[in-house]
Amino acid sequence: MNEFELIARLTRELPTNKSVVTGAGDDCAVLDLGVADKLILFKTDAVVEGFHFTQETPPEQIGRKALARGLSDIAAMAGTPTAALVTIALPEKFEAEFVAKIYGGLNALAREHGVAIVGGETTTNAGRILISIVLLGTVPRGKQILRGGAKTGDAIFVTGELGGSLAEKHLDFEPRLAEARWLAEHFSIHAMLDLSDGLAGDLRHILQASGVGAEILKSAVPVSRAAKLRARNSSAAKPAFAAALTDGEDFELLFTVAGKDAVKLLDAWKKKFPKLKLSCIGKIVAGDGILIRDKTGSHQLNAHGYVHFA
Amino acid sequence: MNEFELIARLTRELPTNKSVVTGAGDDCAVLDLGVADKLILFKTDAVVEGFHFTQETPPEQIGRKALARGLSDIAAMAGTPTAALVTIALPEKFEAEFVAKIYGGLNALAREHGVAIVGGETTTNAGRILISIVLLGTVPRGKQILRGGAKTGDAIFVTGELGGSLAEKHLDFEPRLAEARWLAEHFSIHAMLDLSDGLAGDLRHILQASGVGAEILKSAVPVSRAAKLRARNSSAAKPAFAAALTDGEDFELLFTVAGKDAVKLLDAWKKKFPKLKLSCIGKIVAGDGILIRDKTGSHQLNAHGYVHFA
Repeated sequence: MNEFELIARLTRELPTNKSVVTGAGDDCAVLDLGVADKLILFKTDAVVEGFHFTQETPPEQIGRKALARGLSDIAAMAGTPTAALVTIALPEKFEAEFVAKIYGGLNALAREHGVAIVGGETTTNAGRILISIVLLGTVPRGKQILRGGAKTGDAIFVTGELGGSLAEKHLDFEPRLAEARWLAEHFSIHAMLDLSDGLAGDLRHILQASGVGAEILKSAVPVSRAAKLRARNSSAAKPAFAAALTDGEDFELLFTVAGKDAVKLLDAWKKKFPKLKLSCIGKIVAGDGILIRDKTGSHQLNAHGYVHFA
Repeated sequence: MNEFELIARLTRELPTNKSVVTGAGDDCAVLDLGVADKLILFKTDAVVEGFHFTQETPPEQIGRKALARGLSDIAAMAGTPTAALVTIALPEKFEAEFVAKIYGGLNALAREHGVAIVGGETTTNAGRILISIVLLGTVPRGKQILRGGAKTGDAIFVTGELGGSLAEKHLDFEPRLAEARWLAEHFSIHAMLDLSDGLAGDLRHILQASGVGAEILKSAVPVSRAAKLRARNSSAAKPAFAAALTDGEDFELLFTVAGKDAVKLLDAWKKKFPKLKLSCIGKIVAGDGILIRDKTGSHQLNAHGYVHFA
């Protein structure tokens, strides 16, 4: 049994009950606990030293990132975060001041978004530092946006710029909460998620959940300055476009909307969020997988997210 | 800054909002998310290899225990568990079958109690195995039982038997969910928690939150057979009564009720739960701290939970 078989098996066998609207497999679980006009969002996410931050990362930024990732998941459902619990696992000898600083970064971001921190625990763990965050949020009943609703003919949009997040953005990104709620209020968004694994991998999550394929216009993908700089300054670095497809931790919104709504949405977005780029990067097509179109033609993106141009 | 100062500082500075009915510091956080007749319970709890289980513990029992501890916290509020998220941190090389077995134990207990497992994640961590569980539950509005409501003259009750949990019970205890709900429905329970740190430490939590003291009758404390056996078989073991006070992980309910209701409650309990012992172990008194009464008189319990008989 490999890791993918394991996840498939675990997900298939999970206990459920009538409160579950959407279980494991989307950005958040969606529960019906009997609030008249709202559903409940429920999500856990962990950051681990060596994977999501290093021993050199300032503790305030570690705390901020741990919460920001969870907020980004709430955004991906077009929800509003309400409360969080925090679990911090630390080596046996730890500095109390270090924990206080982790909370400092976390609390500051929580206050920005009106999130209450209602408990948690600090536990010892001989290994790396691990911070697990749980978020509870709400979404207007029926307005949650899942991954499985993309339809042939949809336009595919992405906020911000992609790639090179490790240079800086992975520690100070803004969860797109206001933007996602505005989208859900004003347009019929068919599918949405937040980009954590990279455009190639995450778009595939939407495609597989929706049973469709995608055609991406290479020149339309917004490549970040950080990805371009790195590609220019190091021959060992990924080409900038490959970085935009696969670097991960962009925490931008990826969503689809009926092709007929695309221009109206772009116009309204520019008025509402003039400082945040929104790019239409392609369209949903019948079939499966991802085609990348450039001047030379169409190229199938392989399963690992890298483009092999012939 | 020591650990207690840290916790005090962190708890004081946590962000809050109007959804928070009870924040950090009780068995669960209590939130008002707008359900007409219910409040929401929210709790996270982690078990760590070497502290809560060993490398020899069967993975099914690890999973069961991880969930059972959280269910016990829901019980302590007289709530009903609804849904859980599971985070498992494992060494980099792990056996998928091992994870499947952890979920096996966890899922079986979840099904017994109608709890949906709606997501989570498996992450790598160079250290020990850590499982963090988050529980969401509900409690009838106004019926949640906190730690801070004990009053002078209350009778103090405990379910089951205490001490020696490490021999077996810590891996197969039953969360007292049905019992706690029945108590809250039929009696005015003033304060309640589940015993995780041991009677001496946990009773002190109730006393401090309520601003009162307690007088415990030594002969009334139900000492488990496991604690008695261990004391008899090893001169290095704690005396059985000290084990009942301080071993921890009993996961029984400790609660207080007005003295006038005590006999009625005991009688009704015996009819409703004839197989589970309920013991009245003493009373709430003015002042603070814990007095232990035996044939020789009254003895103050020291801050570490051990009795120093003169």
